[in-house]
Amino acid sequence: MRVLIPYTPTDPKSRLSPVMSASERTAFAHAMLEDVVEAIKTAGHTPEILADAVVPSAPAPVIEDERPLSPAVNAVLDPPDAVIMADMPLVTAGTVADALERPGDVVIGPGRGGGTNLLVVRDDRFAVDYHGASLEDHRRIASSADLVVTEVDSHRISTDIDEPADLVEVLLHGQGRAANWLREHQFELVETDGRVRLRRS
Amino acid sequence: MRVLIPYTPTDPKSRLSPVMSASERTAFAHAMLEDVVEAIKTAGHTPEILADAVVPSAPAPVIEDERPLSPAVNAVLDPPDAVIMADMPLVTAGTVADALERPGDVVIGPGRGGGTNLLVVRDDRFAVDYHGASLEDHRRIASSADLVVTEVDSHRISTDIDEPADLVEVLLHGQGRAANWLREHQFELVETDGRVRLRRS
Repeated sequence: MRVLIPYTPTDPKSRLSPVMSASERTAFAHAMLEDVVEAIKTAGHTPEILADAVVPSAPAPVIEDERPLSPAVNAVLDPPDAVIMADMPLVTAGTVADALERPGDVVIGPGRGGGTNLLVVRDDRFAVDYHGASLEDHRRIASSADLVVTEVDSHRISTDIDEPADLVEVLLHGQGRAANWLREHQFELVETDGRVRLRRS
Repeated sequence: MRVLIPYTPTDPKSRLSPVMSASERTAFAHAMLEDVVEAIKTAGHTPEILADAVVPSAPAPVIEDERPLSPAVNAVLDPPDAVIMADMPLVTAGTVADALERPGDVVIGPGRGGGTNLLVVRDDRFAVDYHGASLEDHRRIASSADLVVTEVDSHRISTDIDEPADLVEVLLHGQGRAANWLREHQFELVETDGRVRLRRS
């Protein structure tokens, strides 16, 4: 199946600014993209990056579209297609393979906080709407068109990396380039007050 | 399988204090406990509450032990047993059934932030250590004893409810008493700046 990967190469992951410089955020975002692309390829599917600007050293073919995310995705979405976010470095080939095999006209992998981190769209009556509370919007859009929806229960899929606290999950569960990038850049887990926290040494 | 549910009935969930009174926290913690007990029973397993004080209106048999969590669990753990935390109201009967059927000497359901929200222990060379970074400790304890470990990838299991932000997940995914309690007490989701947030109206 073709898997679209929305990606913003310019000034990515601004909420990581407290712990990474601008060039580090660019490098880390690219490492996460590479992890997602590799998981998709190893699962036997076909990644295509949907970017709003040129992607240097792109690990897969790029469709460039400057528009906001939802119109850019809807312009190229051609069921059966999947959409997987680029900032999910916990996903493995097994995670992707399992999710893309799930039945339903629409398969939704919720993100923590009400986002939509993974979609499989098998019916062209469905269109994406990523703005705001996209999980509830996607449930509603599918329901309005009488489509059968399956939701995937996965910590690896629900964990997109936006804030410093999310990096803890990469260090606890990540096996790929993003986790290695963090370790090589002196990010580590420390235990204080009986809780795990991030530290940059 | 017997499933131990550690539970603190006295002044529970202190990190929810910014949004709930002490008596509300007690009621909400009890609603979450009821959801977990019901999921375990519906899955065909046998819940036993392991509490450090008397549990009013306990929804399952109670073992009372005033000691800290780890010695209290280890004192009664008799493989094959499972341990499921009481603050996971997203778990369904299906979630529990699937996790408890997973193979391995030890099955671990990681909690977000490095905790251990679910354990299945099938070998008496394993002992729990919930203090601090328990996920990594449990991986290490199992590895030291050459035990086969399976990790469960589940957003419903990884989401324990400690802080106000976690309540968003209950409203997005919960179907039981805890979600109803929140709705009856005027908790709701609102969208601001394209993100979902909690509001109490």
